[in-house]
Amino acid sequence: MDRRGFIKGAGTGLVAASAVNAPAVIAQPTRFRLNMVTSWPAALDNLYGTAEYFAERIEAMTDGDVQARTSPGGAEVGALEVYDAVSNGAFECCHTAPYYFIGKNPAHGFFTALPFGMTMEAQNAWMVSGGGQALWDELNAKDNLIAFPGGNTSAQCGGWFNVEVNSPDDLNGLRMRFPGHGGRVMAKAGVNIQQLPGGEVFTAMERGALDAAEWVGPYDDQILGMQDVAQYYYMPSWAEPSAMLGFYFNLDVWNTFPADIQAQIRACCAEANAWMAARYLSRNPVALQELQDQGVEVRYFPDSVLEAFQTGAAEVHDEDMDNADYARIYPEWEAFRDLTRDWDAANSFRYRAFIHR
Amino acid sequence: MDRRGFIKGAGTGLVAASAVNAPAVIAQPTRFRLNMVTSWPAALDNLYGTAEYFAERIEAMTDGDVQARTSPGGAEVGALEVYDAVSNGAFECCHTAPYYFIGKNPAHGFFTALPFGMTMEAQNAWMVSGGGQALWDELNAKDNLIAFPGGNTSAQCGGWFNVEVNSPDDLNGLRMRFPGHGGRVMAKAGVNIQQLPGGEVFTAMERGALDAAEWVGPYDDQILGMQDVAQYYYMPSWAEPSAMLGFYFNLDVWNTFPADIQAQIRACCAEANAWMAARYLSRNPVALQELQDQGVEVRYFPDSVLEAFQTGAAEVHDEDMDNADYARIYPEWEAFRDLTRDWDAANSFRYRAFIHR
Repeated sequence: MDRRGFIKGAGTGLVAASAVNAPAVIAQPTRFRLNMVTSWPAALDNLYGTAEYFAERIEAMTDGDVQARTSPGGAEVGALEVYDAVSNGAFECCHTAPYYFIGKNPAHGFFTALPFGMTMEAQNAWMVSGGGQALWDELNAKDNLIAFPGGNTSAQCGGWFNVEVNSPDDLNGLRMRFPGHGGRVMAKAGVNIQQLPGGEVFTAMERGALDAAEWVGPYDDQILGMQDVAQYYYMPSWAEPSAMLGFYFNLDVWNTFPADIQAQIRACCAEANAWMAARYLSRNPVALQELQDQGVEVRYFPDSVLEAFQTGAAEVHDEDMDNADYARIYPEWEAFRDLTRDWDAANSFRYRAFIHR
Repeated sequence: MDRRGFIKGAGTGLVAASAVNAPAVIAQPTRFRLNMVTSWPAALDNLYGTAEYFAERIEAMTDGDVQARTSPGGAEVGALEVYDAVSNGAFECCHTAPYYFIGKNPAHGFFTALPFGMTMEAQNAWMVSGGGQALWDELNAKDNLIAFPGGNTSAQCGGWFNVEVNSPDDLNGLRMRFPGHGGRVMAKAGVNIQQLPGGEVFTAMERGALDAAEWVGPYDDQILGMQDVAQYYYMPSWAEPSAMLGFYFNLDVWNTFPADIQAQIRACCAEANAWMAARYLSRNPVALQELQDQGVEVRYFPDSVLEAFQTGAAEVHDEDMDNADYARIYPEWEAFRDLTRDWDAANSFRYRAFIHR
């Protein structure tokens, strides 16, 4: 029996049996099984691929002691039901976007994106070294969960439009699919927000039921076929200047893991977090070029429109401050955002401005 | 004997003995000892701290199967001799900056920073998803090494000056400490480059033997005391828009590690890579404010000066193209840099430009 032979019985009954006295020459049985449900269709190989990457890496790191099995959204549980399914112990873990759950609590938004929020490097820094992880731990523990950063789409795009947006007036009555805080902000600016699952966006755009829609960025949007149903691709994303995803674990199950397994899972999450960002950053530029070759026209939101969104974001923020978790986290999030923003303006942004001049 | 009990004899004799048939109830002895020499003084707690972070995390991940012991530059081997010391097997591993070794081969520069090179997000993406790691593997294998990204300072600063730099003419004859490719570029622009170890920079500035010096960024520069010997802090860094560091392992030793230990070390490196960047991004802004409170004046290089550096960088590049490794890697590096640069200009940069307006 080696040091991992002793495993506390998991309350949920989902942890596999230990291998006591197994001879070393025979492959040892799996000690910990992780059934990971996700919010992604398998076709989105950056998003779903990150869950698969986690599964592959954790198995390699633990020599098979941990085996994770992933499933696409809807296969075992609805794409947006994964949070509850892990919270209540039906599954050990999930891979999803925290801000899908702002309907439960707007504070989840801090852990994916808020309008006019952090760039990817700032978000990563906040989680690792700025106090973000501890705040997330407190929030998640209320639902019997613990989560770690699990990828970032990097900067998203502003969305697909079949009308030009040259002034705030052009937003009035526009029918657009835009989830989360971004959608709430656009509604303040006069947009008629439609809530549709990602899988229905293409059809709604095609039959003219929507004037505009936001999804992720060039690589994922190309897979959905947005270039076939929309003319203008607006940039930048003011709502998701980066978008962090998460690996969530049922806290009771997590607490049954020995410290070394916990440390390995955390390291594996960090590796997956970097992997997804790298994939988006290397594939988005290629996809954007292909989209433009297919006739998509890139447009930029004028400052007047972005300013209208800023006004809307302030109104949405005021509403959310009624939530105790949001109100507690916001000042810490804002202070870190502003600190890193000022530093970017003073230094790295100056480099970018020169090379992009 | 468990699955880790079998260890190939390491050619260097540095891998610890295995624990055959050790009873599970007794703490098992360390299986793999990693003596990690570094290029950092212990006082630089972001740089040296990243080596310590690696040591702490790998021990936790492996429940003590791997123990890493770190030592500051100069304690066991000179700060700039760590590459050779790991290559020849005197130590299992080191933590250093690849570009310290451009004197051996200019191609090492691709794996820290080249003038007008990649931002941190692009560098990380190149290593993980753009082919950079494979090119680095080929380069390092020639010296019996394998290395993984081991932190990034994020964007550095342009340097400390006791004279104002308002035009390219002001560079003529300026005595400056600036290592690596950046120093070669400045020399082309007329600067009188002095090569000094970091520890001697303060004294040289203090007694007026130098007019200017470059080190890292606000947090590290403040520890060195640059604010006491220089008036102007110039931004941005055109030479190191990001600066990647590396964990190097002796390849013979690496090849004795079982696949799971290799996978854990790689994940631990990824975690450390993110940790260092997060530390710099959260501490640099605070340090910059403190420096300004102490009277340091922030200055920006005018475009005419940055353009002079671009001209110099092109000349240095032409010289380096005589090196076969540099010439082989350069087109791949350049293609990825330009791809991610165009994408940044089209999207994320537009967001930054709006919020910094």
